[in-house]
Amino acid sequence: MGASEMKPLDYAEANRARILEELIAFASIPSVSTDPAYAKHIAEGSEWVAERMRRAGLENVKINPTEGHPIVTCDWLHAEGAPTILIYGHYDVQPPDPLEKWKSPPFQPTVRENRLYARGVSDDKGPMLIPIKTAEAYFQTQGRLPINVKFVIEGEEEMGSAHLGAFVAKHKDRLKADFVLSADGAMWRPDEPSITVANRGLAALEFTVTGAAKDLHSGRHGGGIHNPLAAIARLAASLHDDKGRVAVAGFYDAVRPPSNVARRSLADLPFSEEKYFAMIGAPEGYGEDGYSLLERQWLRPTLEFNGLGGGYLGPGSKTVIPTTATAKITCRLVPDQEPDAIVALIEKHLKAHCPKGVTLEIHPGDHGSKAYAVPDDHPGLALAERVLEEVYNKKSLRVRMGATVPIGLIFREAIGAETVFFSFSTADEDYHAPNEFFRLQRLEDGLKAWIRYWELLGGQGAR
Amino acid sequence: MGASEMKPLDYAEANRARILEELIAFASIPSVSTDPAYAKHIAEGSEWVAERMRRAGLENVKINPTEGHPIVTCDWLHAEGAPTILIYGHYDVQPPDPLEKWKSPPFQPTVRENRLYARGVSDDKGPMLIPIKTAEAYFQTQGRLPINVKFVIEGEEEMGSAHLGAFVAKHKDRLKADFVLSADGAMWRPDEPSITVANRGLAALEFTVTGAAKDLHSGRHGGGIHNPLAAIARLAASLHDDKGRVAVAGFYDAVRPPSNVARRSLADLPFSEEKYFAMIGAPEGYGEDGYSLLERQWLRPTLEFNGLGGGYLGPGSKTVIPTTATAKITCRLVPDQEPDAIVALIEKHLKAHCPKGVTLEIHPGDHGSKAYAVPDDHPGLALAERVLEEVYNKKSLRVRMGATVPIGLIFREAIGAETVFFSFSTADEDYHAPNEFFRLQRLEDGLKAWIRYWELLGGQGAR
Repeated sequence: MGASEMKPLDYAEANRARILEELIAFASIPSVSTDPAYAKHIAEGSEWVAERMRRAGLENVKINPTEGHPIVTCDWLHAEGAPTILIYGHYDVQPPDPLEKWKSPPFQPTVRENRLYARGVSDDKGPMLIPIKTAEAYFQTQGRLPINVKFVIEGEEEMGSAHLGAFVAKHKDRLKADFVLSADGAMWRPDEPSITVANRGLAALEFTVTGAAKDLHSGRHGGGIHNPLAAIARLAASLHDDKGRVAVAGFYDAVRPPSNVARRSLADLPFSEEKYFAMIGAPEGYGEDGYSLLERQWLRPTLEFNGLGGGYLGPGSKTVIPTTATAKITCRLVPDQEPDAIVALIEKHLKAHCPKGVTLEIHPGDHGSKAYAVPDDHPGLALAERVLEEVYNKKSLRVRMGATVPIGLIFREAIGAETVFFSFSTADEDYHAPNEFFRLQRLEDGLKAWIRYWELLGGQGAR
Repeated sequence: MGASEMKPLDYAEANRARILEELIAFASIPSVSTDPAYAKHIAEGSEWVAERMRRAGLENVKINPTEGHPIVTCDWLHAEGAPTILIYGHYDVQPPDPLEKWKSPPFQPTVRENRLYARGVSDDKGPMLIPIKTAEAYFQTQGRLPINVKFVIEGEEEMGSAHLGAFVAKHKDRLKADFVLSADGAMWRPDEPSITVANRGLAALEFTVTGAAKDLHSGRHGGGIHNPLAAIARLAASLHDDKGRVAVAGFYDAVRPPSNVARRSLADLPFSEEKYFAMIGAPEGYGEDGYSLLERQWLRPTLEFNGLGGGYLGPGSKTVIPTTATAKITCRLVPDQEPDAIVALIEKHLKAHCPKGVTLEIHPGDHGSKAYAVPDDHPGLALAERVLEEVYNKKSLRVRMGATVPIGLIFREAIGAETVFFSFSTADEDYHAPNEFFRLQRLEDGLKAWIRYWELLGGQGAR
């Protein structure tokens, strides 16, 4: 079969091994965005993406510097009369700690049982490579794309996409599109095709309590001053009541009670709390009274500690009263909660509840984000559902996400475009945890689905 | 002046620079006992001590293996009719963390402003070297000692002297002595000669709460299960009431209220709480209601966190719900509190107060120790006071210590000998903290005092 007779999907299937090799090379780059120690690998990651775009046949490939990490863009705009979509993804990854829990090193991608294990392989390098390879498959077989595309691949998603909004707003004429198709996000379950139609927002802050100016011997000095560890335990514990509800005054003020329709649609999903606990290895559920687990994760806001404490936690013991203790907090927000307002309420609570004998310093996070939902009747969403049903031979579910993908709001605010999440990672793939993996089957499914999506969208004509 | 005309003190003064060099060599050995990573340096430390004993002229030098770290012993028993004392010290040191807070590296001893900075130099390498050099001064000038001495230098003081008791009991005939003179301990203040006549005991335990079996994304999963960091904050906070009193049922049951005499003698000491806060750089005092700061540190028991928490505390952020959170606790005990009983009470409290949604694991520490006080009328104590008054030209104070030196009880129980603490480190020398130092003046004072002590004790004849 000559190249000209080959279909894009045939090309993707014929090049399966090479595409996997490319993903392995991509995932070998430790492009951790949150820790400055990895800065040069962020640069390396952005260059790798740009080079793949060029080789695929995409045009105007550019590594755009920002005040943070660079954003890689490119486009192809020669499908006259066809729709234009903006494709989003990110090349940065979470830190790999705790290293000792990885079965294979986080940046030595390893295939085991049809899964590729590596930090960032599911979030978002695997899913993000798919649209680039989709473009390559079209160019190699048809010499053109059925639609117009613009790519925006950022390097700060794991830090809250701090500079994406300003960048998109600044280049809004160049980046205008009918809608955004995101390669980031995730399917809800490995055995159910699904599309995420809403996600929670984010508000972050960090606080430190300080006792003495230096670490003290806990025997000699113990009893004299407030141990910052005891003080932070008391202060941290004050942020929830004893039934798991956030105890910060005003925290729930903007939150609308979930509608009966929303609650019923969640109750109808094929979901077993027991299976969920078994999957994550937790003894039982816990959280705000009066809500089901899915409601707590999708419809209700949270205040979570991501790090807490201090002192000596190494092997053996050290009889010390440390000078400081720290808490890192992220809240997940639901529609109508404003990140800055939430941070201000928590600050007020912390100041009011800070125990005697320690001083309190609060550092609000710089990457708040409101919750987002795509309109129920968006045609890009309907098309995604049609394609998933074709690929999986099963009706696709509409689900929500407890996590935050700030891009929905960013693109809505900057270019007035809604975002359809069309990702092929799966929620159980341990991103943000040791032993992150990506199912090799999802790489194939994703290529098939993206190729079909572009084909069908091109057939619809411009809107 | 020929060697034979030289007095031991002349010898010590003439060799001041060399003795400092030896201390620098000793403090360069990172003999951290609590962390197995330093095991070979513990061996190196014990060999260094043995070699110095041999060179000093002490006899029967032996590195005795134990189930933990070795104990170095030696003796000299040819002062017929004179008293026999057992000299105690330790060659192990605290871990050096947090490394980034040291102005010069912890194991590169550095002299600045008449102080020697290094981990372990005040606790206990400097003070411990003094009696060895005292013996050397006597041997080099008089060819003999005025008293009989036995040295017991251990390598596990910073881990609670876990194997010392069994070792001393096993060798009780060989180690029998009129009393113990300890080079460990510390003077209370740099400007007041003092002797520590009592110290608090120790009870230790560690506990871990576990949520899910793996770290989870705090956005996606947040709201589903109990975050171990939130759970440990609540559990840790339950251990004290909101006025700093330990809230564990039964914790104070065995504690006798301090007598009016004891309280008055503390009130009479030259001590300013304000100066103390300024010295340690703390904003204010905190602790059990109704007691002065010295009472809380010397006469009342405590429950302190030495380490607490978990999750991501590195630079930037990581949106994780960690699988576990840990607390390391040490309690300081007063007379009549039993370490095992205290640990059992805390275990009971933790089990009763453990929040829903996490599992609790408790690891009792293996090195409890009761509080100790030397009898008020002990002749070795009176002699120590006389010597200090000579050296400092100022009346010596009797003080107590909030910290734990388990050896008082160990020697009392194993060989029926009381312990007089005759140490030349000072409580403000930041042992157990970064930038530990030892005042060079104390090295001179200590040599002068130990030489004089042996001389006077030898003159008293056997008791």
